[in-house]
Amino acid sequence: MNHSNLKQQNQEIVLAEHPSGLPTENTFKINDIDMPQLKASEVLIKSIYVSVDPGMRGFMNKGDDDAAGNKFQLNKPITSRTVAQIIESNDDDFAVGDIVHGRFAWQKYQTVKIADIEKVDPTLAPISTAVSMLGIPGLSAYFGMLTIGQPKKEETVVVSGAAGSVGSIAAQIAKIKGCKVIGIAGSAQKIAFLEDDLGLDKGINYHQTDDMEVAIKEACPDGVDVFFDNVGGELFDAVFANINKHGRVAICGQIAEYNADNPPQGPRPMQTLIKKSARMEGFVVYDFADEFDAAKKQIAEWYNAGQLKYKENLIEGFENIPSAFIGLFTGENIGKQMIKTGDLEK
Amino acid sequence: MNHSNLKQQNQEIVLAEHPSGLPTENTFKINDIDMPQLKASEVLIKSIYVSVDPGMRGFMNKGDDDAAGNKFQLNKPITSRTVAQIIESNDDDFAVGDIVHGRFAWQKYQTVKIADIEKVDPTLAPISTAVSMLGIPGLSAYFGMLTIGQPKKEETVVVSGAAGSVGSIAAQIAKIKGCKVIGIAGSAQKIAFLEDDLGLDKGINYHQTDDMEVAIKEACPDGVDVFFDNVGGELFDAVFANINKHGRVAICGQIAEYNADNPPQGPRPMQTLIKKSARMEGFVVYDFADEFDAAKKQIAEWYNAGQLKYKENLIEGFENIPSAFIGLFTGENIGKQMIKTGDLEK
Repeated sequence: MNHSNLKQQNQEIVLAEHPSGLPTENTFKINDIDMPQLKASEVLIKSIYVSVDPGMRGFMNKGDDDAAGNKFQLNKPITSRTVAQIIESNDDDFAVGDIVHGRFAWQKYQTVKIADIEKVDPTLAPISTAVSMLGIPGLSAYFGMLTIGQPKKEETVVVSGAAGSVGSIAAQIAKIKGCKVIGIAGSAQKIAFLEDDLGLDKGINYHQTDDMEVAIKEACPDGVDVFFDNVGGELFDAVFANINKHGRVAICGQIAEYNADNPPQGPRPMQTLIKKSARMEGFVVYDFADEFDAAKKQIAEWYNAGQLKYKENLIEGFENIPSAFIGLFTGENIGKQMIKTGDLEK
Repeated sequence: MNHSNLKQQNQEIVLAEHPSGLPTENTFKINDIDMPQLKASEVLIKSIYVSVDPGMRGFMNKGDDDAAGNKFQLNKPITSRTVAQIIESNDDDFAVGDIVHGRFAWQKYQTVKIADIEKVDPTLAPISTAVSMLGIPGLSAYFGMLTIGQPKKEETVVVSGAAGSVGSIAAQIAKIKGCKVIGIAGSAQKIAFLEDDLGLDKGINYHQTDDMEVAIKEACPDGVDVFFDNVGGELFDAVFANINKHGRVAICGQIAEYNADNPPQGPRPMQTLIKKSARMEGFVVYDFADEFDAAKKQIAEWYNAGQLKYKENLIEGFENIPSAFIGLFTGENIGKQMIKTGDLEK
């Protein structure tokens, strides 16, 4: 493997300013940087697939508590889930050419600690799925739907953001469990994806719907038993108004609210929770870290059996990471948003 | 038993108008009525203890759905949980003199169907507790705290409305389970009751506290693991801001909101639910009807062992039921509000 000319090729993308509301191109800045020096217990990696998620928006705000150390700092590179290839290694367990994944910097090349990388098994599924279907989005769908939603055969399940990387997996898991599944998304193209590609019972385009509460009622004449919510806001209210007795709401994401500068206000859900003996539960997928391996195995099994489909929205080019991220909030992406930042070395 | 002069003694209290906001004396009207005629499968009962609860306010609104048939109708008697004595019976299973309870009309004397009454065991505890500690309030506390709250030893539990009929039992059950328990109430007298009579770790008087969020934080340096909420509104927000990772919120009542004409607005809780992997769950005590007998036995056991104390706020006189009900919303009651409407016949 020859990388004598890597020095002039390395680049990073940093947080140029804290966005107020929607992120823009000005939120980010691309810099030419040197190749890092490999230290003990590190490997040099080349980014191959970079993933962007709406949840990252929350880490771009300034101030606040940051106990988890997730916040992005000004003039420091953004980090996100990335699939990479090892270019140099001093560690016997990690060979040059191995595929790994982790939360890495938006850098073409970087050194990372052995402790911060995880190997990808390229025989299981396409390697990019290590940070999507077989990564945090797929695992979020899996545990949110099964552990919190607990869908039972013939129940009615509604998934918002159903064309997204989490929602599309969550909706299909509910179908596998024998439920009637309604997906909500924001374009005709996405609705076609939900109904034709994923086989959901119905897709509802909220951009083409005047009264979502009524639309949900019509699509769910028996009410909503499980609501897997990726969106929040008024869309939440419309679905929640149809929740059944003993209904379960898995709060997975709140994309409608990530750009809000202030804590968003809305109707208080408590009286409905009482009247319906219903449950709302949030979760962070790492709560289930002990069960990740079993879940990945199950998801890959469904995928390889053709029961679960996976769609990726792939953009080429390291320099296009910011626009891919910004595009998450304009509602045009279908499936998991990934950026291919480089080719595998042979 | 001589009741030849009962005819002129019978009275009822009806809903005179749908209240807007807080109920007033004009909400109710007292009428002289005739003694009813006993029919087959009925008994004639004399009301002894009438109970009033904040939740009844919701049944006084006009319109809305009323699938459960709970709404009060104009010029018809209000109904509430009542302990009564059988005065006349044609049924072998129910003898004259027996104590029964059920949801009866605000009438001094009335006939009720056998199917709508339940016997009270006077050896278990004072008979008035059949509609309080051993009735719906006690059972709500029991199932809300144990099934939804799931308090574990040494966890921190906060109960709002802690001096009320539900809250006082819920808080004591958490103490029995080995938790640190903070009670919130609205007067110095109630705080003394919580700390001195019930033995809670701390009582917080929200009427004397400028910043409840800070006060909760100070009282709960390890955060809040279980929040048993009887109040809702801004008090909810203040406690919820301190909820711990994997915290559980049992939504039992929302007294702050019962008088609201419109669905109340507030900060959306979803982002906190996600961040904390926390759960909010509403319940209706009848969800647990199959387990009522076992729960009553356990509560009576704690009571008779001196582990659980019960306080009743007793007002005398049938004609004082409305003012006792109105008083629930002015924050002056300690313990279960009951009205003694008549003496037991010998």
